[in-house]
Amino acid sequence: MDRRIGAISPPGRLADPAEGIGSEELALATRNHGMPLESLRYDLTPPGLHYVLVHYDIPAADANTWALTLCGRVRTPLTLDMAALRSFTAVTHRVTMECAGNGRALLMPRPVSQPWLVEGVGTAEWTGVPLRTLLAECGVAPGSVEVVFTGADHGLERGVEQDYQRSLPLEVATGRDPEVVVAYAMNGAPLPPQHGHPLRLVVPGWYGMAHVKWLREITVVDTEFTGFQQHVAYRYRQTADDPGEPVTRIAPRSLMVPPGFPDFMSRTRVVRPGPQLLEGRAWSGRSPVVRVEVSTDGGRGWHDAELTERHGHAWAWRHWQAPWVATPGAHVLSVRATDAEGNSQPLKQSWNRGGFGNNVVQRVAVHCEAAGAPDDGDQDAADHLDSPARSHAGSPAPSPPRSRADS
Amino acid sequence: MDRRIGAISPPGRLADPAEGIGSEELALATRNHGMPLESLRYDLTPPGLHYVLVHYDIPAADANTWALTLCGRVRTPLTLDMAALRSFTAVTHRVTMECAGNGRALLMPRPVSQPWLVEGVGTAEWTGVPLRTLLAECGVAPGSVEVVFTGADHGLERGVEQDYQRSLPLEVATGRDPEVVVAYAMNGAPLPPQHGHPLRLVVPGWYGMAHVKWLREITVVDTEFTGFQQHVAYRYRQTADDPGEPVTRIAPRSLMVPPGFPDFMSRTRVVRPGPQLLEGRAWSGRSPVVRVEVSTDGGRGWHDAELTERHGHAWAWRHWQAPWVATPGAHVLSVRATDAEGNSQPLKQSWNRGGFGNNVVQRVAVHCEAAGAPDDGDQDAADHLDSPARSHAGSPAPSPPRSRADS
Repeated sequence: MDRRIGAISPPGRLADPAEGIGSEELALATRNHGMPLESLRYDLTPPGLHYVLVHYDIPAADANTWALTLCGRVRTPLTLDMAALRSFTAVTHRVTMECAGNGRALLMPRPVSQPWLVEGVGTAEWTGVPLRTLLAECGVAPGSVEVVFTGADHGLERGVEQDYQRSLPLEVATGRDPEVVVAYAMNGAPLPPQHGHPLRLVVPGWYGMAHVKWLREITVVDTEFTGFQQHVAYRYRQTADDPGEPVTRIAPRSLMVPPGFPDFMSRTRVVRPGPQLLEGRAWSGRSPVVRVEVSTDGGRGWHDAELTERHGHAWAWRHWQAPWVATPGAHVLSVRATDAEGNSQPLKQSWNRGGFGNNVVQRVAVHCEAAGAPDDGDQDAADHLDSPARSHAGSPAPSPPRSRADS
Repeated sequence: MDRRIGAISPPGRLADPAEGIGSEELALATRNHGMPLESLRYDLTPPGLHYVLVHYDIPAADANTWALTLCGRVRTPLTLDMAALRSFTAVTHRVTMECAGNGRALLMPRPVSQPWLVEGVGTAEWTGVPLRTLLAECGVAPGSVEVVFTGADHGLERGVEQDYQRSLPLEVATGRDPEVVVAYAMNGAPLPPQHGHPLRLVVPGWYGMAHVKWLREITVVDTEFTGFQQHVAYRYRQTADDPGEPVTRIAPRSLMVPPGFPDFMSRTRVVRPGPQLLEGRAWSGRSPVVRVEVSTDGGRGWHDAELTERHGHAWAWRHWQAPWVATPGAHVLSVRATDAEGNSQPLKQSWNRGGFGNNVVQRVAVHCEAAGAPDDGDQDAADHLDSPARSHAGSPAPSPPRSRADS
């Protein structure tokens, strides 16, 4: 491909220290979306609130004509339409899915890509056929080592034109726990377009890049798959020359429902003085979360949160709660999860060049103040701030004075 | 409220010319989301792809206990639960809804707020009770002039603590075309949380700020409503001191399905040489779209697109299509809509301080190149670009050489 492609398909890069989010990162951020953190209140993320990351375009897919091909090193190549797939015994798994790039925009220096803060997550129930069942049906040839999954989304990335493709080692593809699923339903309904309609892979415990959407081909191979999304993207590297380690399972993370209410622009939280129940969800794709700790003093002191029963959902997040008595002033709340293998979350960033797996502890800035607290009389402040009118429609408050800076 | 609130609830401002998107704008962009433009292929936007803008938090609302109060200058104040609302004769309207701030991040200088490019739009079918019916039921007192709508979302904005509130003139609230609806279903299902569950206002033809979500109170008043979202926000102002004009109906806009396929990072489109069918949707909240023109040379020449029948949906977007023969090289495609009143889209920005109603024509950068076009042999380019391998899983391509800049 010629030199012009370089201009429209740039290599990966790091942002300069003072560089704000650019127009290309913004174009990704307005298409894709995270889960608003107040949605952590739901055990199962409602449709439309689950995070979405689409590498290229959402394909125009028709379930009536969709076909999945199983091929490569198999005894009997198969092509299955949706009715054929539904004829297998179905399984349903509740899975917390997280983008491997979640936390990327918090890194310094910032890798330029989809600029996630911490919202790139969601939990859904996925229904479909165990991949193991389909592989048994077509018969895997001896000597096979990996299974390659090809989606229908097509695009260009760092100069490489491609259909989205990822692989799994054969032992992961045929494993029983986690059980990899070829899924056709999300929360009991057909997959929405942005989640892979009509068919996607679900790999419980793995970051999102493994869950290939718009799945159209499953290929058994006898050599390591070296496609773009496996060997160029999605590796933990320190330098561009570093071969790096592959991105696989989800590192532990806990997030809290931000308490109180937000300021529109700064998103800073406002709470009233007094008892608060902090709550949220914690997960790890490596082993079960066994401990969640909360800090209400910016990370100096930590105390254990109460973990709610997980009701058998081994690959879904776990609810936690912790009491807090808010006192007037500024606070920074944090939470960290630890799993059964002892994996936990760092207090300082663990940087890599692709911006993957940044599970640094969440910091929630909270301003605690009594309702209708008296103005402190400072005229500089009063001059550019409106009074705390909580107007009731039945008796509209007078129009607040417009400040110099209002627009 | 004291000086500390100033730090967490800043006044409106404009970005400096070289200022990238900041962390606060990014926090909004990762929560809220636009409609990926390939979704313009759907007449009715599938769930989860319709744009979402939440001012504060999505409230924890329970349809089983939700109640709507009608009060103020009425003969008989009413409180209606969801069952009572469903007992009225229902209407369904297909409505294109657009955020008033759509296009904001394209403005120079950029008003700092939710940084939309052009994706803040979607079309849904909304089912509920005509507002006119409910107002007749409670009886509007003589001398009333406006109706105020209060949502359950609560927050702080430029120093003002508030429940989200907007008003409509009484003649709009009771009008027959458009017919304002108190809606409890979207595309035939209960409202999702982010779209106002369980109840919202729908005002066909108006920008999104009028469609109050999580609607809990309707108040008839005899004076002009002067709440924050009516008199401070959502006004077309040139300066902070300008009282401005209220933001009301949607200005005309047309968008195209971006042709071909994208580069992941730059979002630039790649098409093959030859005939292409450009298509998209056009809408106006002022009067019906009567003309759509397409330019394939960066806005110098324009030709008419073919408009598809609108099948009676007066307040929804209209499909259009136009043939194009792509030739190798770089192209900029544009499209503009004109409505029956002669309103059209500007080629240069029409700036205002809040960044509202920016309907400047869309510009889609397209790179046209034959598949597998030969490398031009430039070693500087070849050195940092991978070859255009479209690997097939069954016979994996060799790992592309990693460039210095890959990460």
